[in-house]
Amino acid sequence: MVTYDSILKNIQKHLVLDQEEIDFFTSLIRWRRVPKKSLLLKEGQLCRHLNYVHSGALRAYCMDKKGKEGTIMFALADWWITDMYCFLNGKRAMMQIEVLEDSVIFQISKENWDRLLSDQPKFEKLFRILMQNAYTREQLRAIERLSLSAEERYESFLAKYPVIASTVTQKQIASYLGITPEFLSVIRRMAGGKRGRSRD
Amino acid sequence: MVTYDSILKNIQKHLVLDQEEIDFFTSLIRWRRVPKKSLLLKEGQLCRHLNYVHSGALRAYCMDKKGKEGTIMFALADWWITDMYCFLNGKRAMMQIEVLEDSVIFQISKENWDRLLSDQPKFEKLFRILMQNAYTREQLRAIERLSLSAEERYESFLAKYPVIASTVTQKQIASYLGITPEFLSVIRRMAGGKRGRSRD
Repeated sequence: MVTYDSILKNIQKHLVLDQEEIDFFTSLIRWRRVPKKSLLLKEGQLCRHLNYVHSGALRAYCMDKKGKEGTIMFALADWWITDMYCFLNGKRAMMQIEVLEDSVIFQISKENWDRLLSDQPKFEKLFRILMQNAYTREQLRAIERLSLSAEERYESFLAKYPVIASTVTQKQIASYLGITPEFLSVIRRMAGGKRGRSRD
Repeated sequence: MVTYDSILKNIQKHLVLDQEEIDFFTSLIRWRRVPKKSLLLKEGQLCRHLNYVHSGALRAYCMDKKGKEGTIMFALADWWITDMYCFLNGKRAMMQIEVLEDSVIFQISKENWDRLLSDQPKFEKLFRILMQNAYTREQLRAIERLSLSAEERYESFLAKYPVIASTVTQKQIASYLGITPEFLSVIRRMAGGKRGRSRD
């Protein structure tokens, strides 16, 4: 059975809510099971929802003209994910969100999100913090891409996201780091060698 | 003379403020003139301020081990800029912010920013929107880097940031796009040819 416990705990890290506020918030969201290998969002589709991952694993990616995938982000339990620009501006998605493992998500539509913020301005703080976390994550990633070697970026990825690293494939990690799977394999062998053990 | 007009207009796009709130906000910020070619923030220095550009032009960049610069962002009049992760977490800056033109900025310290948000929660909305804009800017940039050619990224940069494009050097634009100045020069000649006029 899916309960609101995890999403409310996520929110109550940042906000103190009374029962009425909890009831109002939960009336605006709905939960969905999404099966492994399905697409939660397709490129070109209107992006209508912000998604909270209750359980499972998702990946957002986009493709170049040759069909080569670049990973934008991963989202495991307790993460929020959407094509934010398109969600906010009612545009067609520029990325796809695929389901890596059978997942349960909570969704809030743009209309309900607007209503939440206008009727309950205390939720501004929650989304300020979520947007801030997302922005700093992307800013750090840009800094790392500009200043670190691929090896160092891989080490940093493992340190920051150990659960993601153990959930997704090496090919998906490579596409997040912007390197080929072959090069990631070389890096992993070298890292294994340095540590005196194999990581393969 | 530097007045609060521009920063208050920036804020009042998103918030309705009464005189008391305006007075409280302006009591927490201070203005500074920063001369061209100076560094507003040095790598390794504690990042204590969030900066609003009243006039002028700034650029945030970081360097790889060989001293090669990668541009993180530009900020002209009416933009906000800082090393956000380090500002929020009281860390030493991972980037530098250089002054491209004699500029006037308003600064708010981390302590005063915390005080503003705790004493006047209505400012949460302002910073939710600023963080959201910054996040979507970075997410779009990541999508473009993964899905567009260098030529298309340059065209998109010109369309999105015409004033920045006419203010900063070609070398700085190249370092924002992640290409060499020589390659940008080729792209510009080709674009000029396509349009039947030279852009050089």
